[in-house]
Amino acid sequence: MRSIGKEEIEKIAVGAALLGTGGGGDPYIGKLMALQAVEKFGPVKLLSVDELKDDDLVVPSAMMGAPTVLVEKVPSGEESLAAFTALENYLDKKITATMPIEAGGVNSLIPIALAAQTGLPVVDADGMGRAFPELQMVTFYLDGINASPMVLADEKKNSLLLNAVDGMWTEKIARNATMTMGGSLLDAIYPMSGKQVKESSILDSLTLEEELGDIILNSKHPIEDLVEKHNGKILFKGKITDVERRTDGGFVRGSASFDGIEENIDMKASLEFQNENLICLVDGEPKCLTPDLITVLDAETGMPITTEGLKYGMRGVILGMPADKKWRTKKGIETVGPRYFGYDFDYKTIEELNK
Amino acid sequence: MRSIGKEEIEKIAVGAALLGTGGGGDPYIGKLMALQAVEKFGPVKLLSVDELKDDDLVVPSAMMGAPTVLVEKVPSGEESLAAFTALENYLDKKITATMPIEAGGVNSLIPIALAAQTGLPVVDADGMGRAFPELQMVTFYLDGINASPMVLADEKKNSLLLNAVDGMWTEKIARNATMTMGGSLLDAIYPMSGKQVKESSILDSLTLEEELGDIILNSKHPIEDLVEKHNGKILFKGKITDVERRTDGGFVRGSASFDGIEENIDMKASLEFQNENLICLVDGEPKCLTPDLITVLDAETGMPITTEGLKYGMRGVILGMPADKKWRTKKGIETVGPRYFGYDFDYKTIEELNK
Repeated sequence: MRSIGKEEIEKIAVGAALLGTGGGGDPYIGKLMALQAVEKFGPVKLLSVDELKDDDLVVPSAMMGAPTVLVEKVPSGEESLAAFTALENYLDKKITATMPIEAGGVNSLIPIALAAQTGLPVVDADGMGRAFPELQMVTFYLDGINASPMVLADEKKNSLLLNAVDGMWTEKIARNATMTMGGSLLDAIYPMSGKQVKESSILDSLTLEEELGDIILNSKHPIEDLVEKHNGKILFKGKITDVERRTDGGFVRGSASFDGIEENIDMKASLEFQNENLICLVDGEPKCLTPDLITVLDAETGMPITTEGLKYGMRGVILGMPADKKWRTKKGIETVGPRYFGYDFDYKTIEELNK
Repeated sequence: MRSIGKEEIEKIAVGAALLGTGGGGDPYIGKLMALQAVEKFGPVKLLSVDELKDDDLVVPSAMMGAPTVLVEKVPSGEESLAAFTALENYLDKKITATMPIEAGGVNSLIPIALAAQTGLPVVDADGMGRAFPELQMVTFYLDGINASPMVLADEKKNSLLLNAVDGMWTEKIARNATMTMGGSLLDAIYPMSGKQVKESSILDSLTLEEELGDIILNSKHPIEDLVEKHNGKILFKGKITDVERRTDGGFVRGSASFDGIEENIDMKASLEFQNENLICLVDGEPKCLTPDLITVLDAETGMPITTEGLKYGMRGVILGMPADKKWRTKKGIETVGPRYFGYDFDYKTIEELNK
């Protein structure tokens, strides 16, 4: 068992922005919430999955909604707590740990804030190994674990306990409720046994985020180190010439265009995103496709840039990384591959596309 | 204590269509559900509010959604039962009776079907004395009773327990969930003590529906009898020249135009509706305004016509009736008066408007 304090949170926030692949909500807000909570209640216990008992009750805590709304409406922490309490009452069982639903953006840090507040440990694992926009896009779903019962809570003290027949219905109903209730909510979702977490989650996510964040914050050559130590692949170096985005059905959808610089001079690249970066084309050819990870890094500092942060004239390095193998299965690709998001590409791995 | 069997259901269905003021959902579907349930499980006990104990737990059962959708999707009865069971589990207390939330259309009959299925009695009361389109438009709301906790259930076995801060938020969140979950749902809502039902409901609604239905089905001069025995006022006799309706945000909104016949020859009338008939103008002058009741009756048979049933060429009598005095208060008029629905009229009683 390790512990997460202020220093770890600073690193995790940066690593979470990288794995957030442009989405997952602004990690800055999550960082503020986690730092505040740790300052007030002390550091948080980090459990590896091996330390879980099979009959533990683990409940991920997350924020749901369009990242653009999150920026305007920082939650107090009361919402997560209300959602957890309502779910505990419903299940009539004590929750023994929380964990991130996704390794990315604000949702890597929300569980840390809640853990500090409640004294619960956080499990060093998640359900995506990156960020994705929909509730069923988790490895738990691939293993048939239901997202329900789940609780959504807002800052006005409205709460909603949802028992949907499957992850797709949970997503549909919860997404719509989120829009109705003001665009962003806190949820307690995918209640699981310790055994289920061990079998179905992606391991060591918070540790990975901390390592990635440490490289970006402390290395002299962060981009090179990411490539060397974490299977990163530089897909493109360029300058942003155009960004188009719109908030639509609870998501931020759009694209960004790049003109090449340095070794990519006279070439063009484009990114397609739906909350997260999903497709990277270079001169019209796919170089990285969801579920593989695509993140834009600031060319100078190596800091990850969210899709909201993409701006005309910015110089960026588009970094690709391979997805966890759980996503590279048939059901994985059906759930989060390019065609699910409406793109006319068959999934090929980043390794194949960049031979 | 009386009992409700097939004969009573036939009458109640007709009376409910009258008090439904054009909306409340097609009572034919509610009648089928109630008849089927009574046939299978036997007659239902009807309790007057005097027979309630103060600590009884009474939960109205209702269908929520656009009437046009209800016609295409008849519920099995499992949905109401699922909603009741989920609410009982949440409250950790046995429900001792059900009742209609509104005196109108399908929602007068849904509780009878559920009562037959569960063996619970039905209370002879409701929260509107007519039909209205939104959840907070009940006399319970006027007395500060919360609609939450409420449960919504669909035929796919999705269910949703909502704890909203007030009736307006309940309406907003539940309405949106209803749209997401397919346009019509069954709910268990406004859980109340026997004491609250006694103080805050409109009394003897099912008995009134039965009496009104009996007049329409059995009287030789139904329209005249309604006027004489139930304070009815004939607002207009005419032929429908135009009907405009659209489904919008879960509601059926529209208007109908009439050319006068008989004593109204050379005059014109128009009806404005939002699920229910809300405004009746004769030659541009208001003759009846919500919350007073407006129902179109078939000129020959006296049978009430829902807004979906209004058709070009049809001959109808527009009947007005005074609303319960609970609605004629300041908060009542704020909640269901013409201005709430966006009409530029101050409420005046049907008695004043037809002196």
